[in-house]
Amino acid sequence: MTPQGEDFSAWYNELVAKAQLVDRGPARGTMVIRPYGYRLWELLQAELDRRIKDTGHENAYFPMLIPESYLRREAEHVEGFSPELAVVTHAGGKELEEPLIVRPTSETIIGEMMAKWVSSHRDLPLLLNQWANVVRWELRPRMFLRTTEFLWQEGHTAHADEADAMRETMLALDLYTEVARDIAAIPVVPGEKTPGERFAGAVRTYTIEGMMRDGKALQAGTSHYMGTNFAEAFDIRYTSGTGRLEPCHTTSWGMTTRMIGAVIMTHGDDKGLVLPPRLAPYQVVVVPIGRGDQLERTSAAARELADRLKAAGVRAHVDDRAQLSPGFRFNDWELRGVPVRLELGPRDLESGTVVMVRRLGDEGKQSIPVSSAPDVIPGLLEEFQEFLLRRATAFRDGHTAAADSWDVFVEVVASGWASALHCGAPACEDDIKAKTAATPRCIPLDGAAETGRCVHCGEPSAYGKRVLFGRAY
Amino acid sequence: MTPQGEDFSAWYNELVAKAQLVDRGPARGTMVIRPYGYRLWELLQAELDRRIKDTGHENAYFPMLIPESYLRREAEHVEGFSPELAVVTHAGGKELEEPLIVRPTSETIIGEMMAKWVSSHRDLPLLLNQWANVVRWELRPRMFLRTTEFLWQEGHTAHADEADAMRETMLALDLYTEVARDIAAIPVVPGEKTPGERFAGAVRTYTIEGMMRDGKALQAGTSHYMGTNFAEAFDIRYTSGTGRLEPCHTTSWGMTTRMIGAVIMTHGDDKGLVLPPRLAPYQVVVVPIGRGDQLERTSAAARELADRLKAAGVRAHVDDRAQLSPGFRFNDWELRGVPVRLELGPRDLESGTVVMVRRLGDEGKQSIPVSSAPDVIPGLLEEFQEFLLRRATAFRDGHTAAADSWDVFVEVVASGWASALHCGAPACEDDIKAKTAATPRCIPLDGAAETGRCVHCGEPSAYGKRVLFGRAY
Ligand SMILES: [Zn+2]
Ligand SMILES: [Zn+2]
Repeated sequence: MTPQGEDFSAWYNELVAKAQLVDRGPARGTMVIRPYGYRLWELLQAELDRRIKDTGHENAYFPMLIPESYLRREAEHVEGFSPELAVVTHAGGKELEEPLIVRPTSETIIGEMMAKWVSSHRDLPLLLNQWANVVRWELRPRMFLRTTEFLWQEGHTAHADEADAMRETMLALDLYTEVARDIAAIPVVPGEKTPGERFAGAVRTYTIEGMMRDGKALQAGTSHYMGTNFAEAFDIRYTSGTGRLEPCHTTSWGMTTRMIGAVIMTHGDDKGLVLPPRLAPYQVVVVPIGRGDQLERTSAAARELADRLKAAGVRAHVDDRAQLSPGFRFNDWELRGVPVRLELGPRDLESGTVVMVRRLGDEGKQSIPVSSAPDVIPGLLEEFQEFLLRRATAFRDGHTAAADSWDVFVEVVASGWASALHCGAPACEDDIKAKTAATPRCIPLDGAAETGRCVHCGEPSAYGKRVLFGRAY
Repeated sequence: MTPQGEDFSAWYNELVAKAQLVDRGPARGTMVIRPYGYRLWELLQAELDRRIKDTGHENAYFPMLIPESYLRREAEHVEGFSPELAVVTHAGGKELEEPLIVRPTSETIIGEMMAKWVSSHRDLPLLLNQWANVVRWELRPRMFLRTTEFLWQEGHTAHADEADAMRETMLALDLYTEVARDIAAIPVVPGEKTPGERFAGAVRTYTIEGMMRDGKALQAGTSHYMGTNFAEAFDIRYTSGTGRLEPCHTTSWGMTTRMIGAVIMTHGDDKGLVLPPRLAPYQVVVVPIGRGDQLERTSAAARELADRLKAAGVRAHVDDRAQLSPGFRFNDWELRGVPVRLELGPRDLESGTVVMVRRLGDEGKQSIPVSSAPDVIPGLLEEFQEFLLRRATAFRDGHTAAADSWDVFVEVVASGWASALHCGAPACEDDIKAKTAATPRCIPLDGAAETGRCVHCGEPSAYGKRVLFGRAY
């Protein structure tokens, strides 16, 4: 496999295939998510879904095929998505009277239904979520990161006023921040997008940005306050307590299979994937060693150990593929990012021990009593989870610097993120991008109040605080 | 609501809307699955997914857009689906060189990937499952039963030989039978389809058939042995232990959102839905009664009770909508099929009791100590689940009869199922359908050996046992 330092992009492309996460689909930019990759998604999905439900949202399902006219009702929205649409023109053996769009996102069709379902202030807030596939035609596809079809959840909510809708917008951002940090071990930075980077039709767009190991940023989830734009376009109105007809304030927010790409690029190294235990399909792999009768005995012991680990709540797997050497199997599970490997050879059987190897860290090989493994491993996995978050945080902080001059800015964004004052002018953003490939990733929520001169053009700064700039996926 | 006895079809259409299960989508034959309907699906999905995983299958995800040429590779398959396809002809602002089909099912694209993934007998069996949306253009749509887009799981597996593939085919049928019976309380009949009713491209098709309360049959899940048809068309081959290149034997099997329609039509009555507790989004609804201060006190007590029920593993909900009368709320939850209602009025508060009402059964209202509710309710829900299965079984058996003459056959299929000998000729099946609207639903697996004369044409019987005939959804 190409080393990260040589060609990060080649490393990524080779790894997603070799680790059997994904395969190319036949239609342009589509991907097959293989069982190992899909399990990662399922585990992430379960964590996010639980939090979405716990905060009062209900799942529903809306049709994937949307009449073309729906998208035209909100001008900015259709403009934002037009070049990416896939269009069904024929069905049931005939040409359709009105073409149907394969949903690129569902604001329009959900807006249409919200208008039917909301009439009184008692119907608000309406808190919906959908798990679905969406299609956005992709000319420069990249597995997980930019694919023509991807999987996601999309939250769509309607509220009586701006304050309530903004609370919801920030709640969704908080959920994403928490899932990224606590489950994927990615220390994302939550913040607001500058106007030039807003979602099509949104009044405010918030994002969580993670730093990948090549210093680039990845937008790992977004949350949008739509104001009354969609409510006006789709006639989502309610009668207030005083009997007045008012437009709703809506939000939408999404997290996608892109998160798997973020996990790979935040933690992976030249040996392959490194998976946070909370997302790892297998948290522990037990590898029995030996030949013939010996292998049968160590395999039986490995299965017994795996059963005891499972009973302790650990996702354990036994790799007893007799046709493959132990070394090959060790490398395979390192490539596939399993947090802990347990090696079980004939001598371990005699001494009642097992050799424990972490996927990362300085501890090296360690022999522990096999009987204690189910007690020891859960804590070890928690430690490993925390270790990955600490390591990623240190990496992010080590590659982020304040930039108060253009020279420093250029140097910093070559390998990481620059925290800089900016004038807020879209044209100035464009200039910066043309010169450095860096874009404003977000205005961090927790940034300290500060004003001054734009790092690029010298005009007075906007936003009242610094903006984070970086090259991005 | 129209009574079942007057117009079953009108009853169904009104109920799915009034119970807020579903709404019509804008594109022909599409449906919006509302939160209450989607929760039913999620609960069914969780039960089925667990069983699919426990039997060694892995979930994956395959692209929804399939090149048209893929479908043409298996002749029977393309013929079976051609009139139902939705076709993407334009994407990314251009006309596509090759149109893309929105998957009507995924045998072809999964076959293409299996060919890449299988090389040795060690790669077999390959046991995959996918949860996905599919599109089949529907000219006579019916919510949940026949919709242009629906949700399902599709299992796809590859095996070394017929025996192993047939074991898998029957295993999937067993899973479906179990989920229908134990979770949905539908006493389905598992059996084989006659050749005329086989899936496009299959060698053998198995089905589970449930009887709805109008005496019609509903196919609630199917499992197909494909022989080597798809393996030959997609080049899915493996090297055997002796070094020979052999085609795989494949299977596919699916269960869909149609199951929700089956639940509605198996258990519902003139008051509305009747939900089996294992699928009910709310197993218990607590309705506080009173006005003003009283309602505040009973509502607080209702919430406390609901919390204690939740702690006991019961899905409980409090309906404290002050603007609606108790009677309206009682009817609403009867309409929505909640198994048990608990009424909590000011006098109940004083006496420390709660009034318990089952959705069905002869017990009437019953007052129980509020403190005992969390102990009593779980068992009551189990009883209710079993009661529904017994009731549906009695209904099915009461509407199924042996038919050894044509006159009896005609009479029986007018209101239920006929168990009859048949010659097996497709032309004779067509005649029967033209005269009675009944079709062969399946050849039940547990049918006793029997031969004789066809109930319709008098030719010698086929299959060595009786066939179940009925009108069907
Ligand atoms: Zn500037
Ligand atoms: Zn006949």
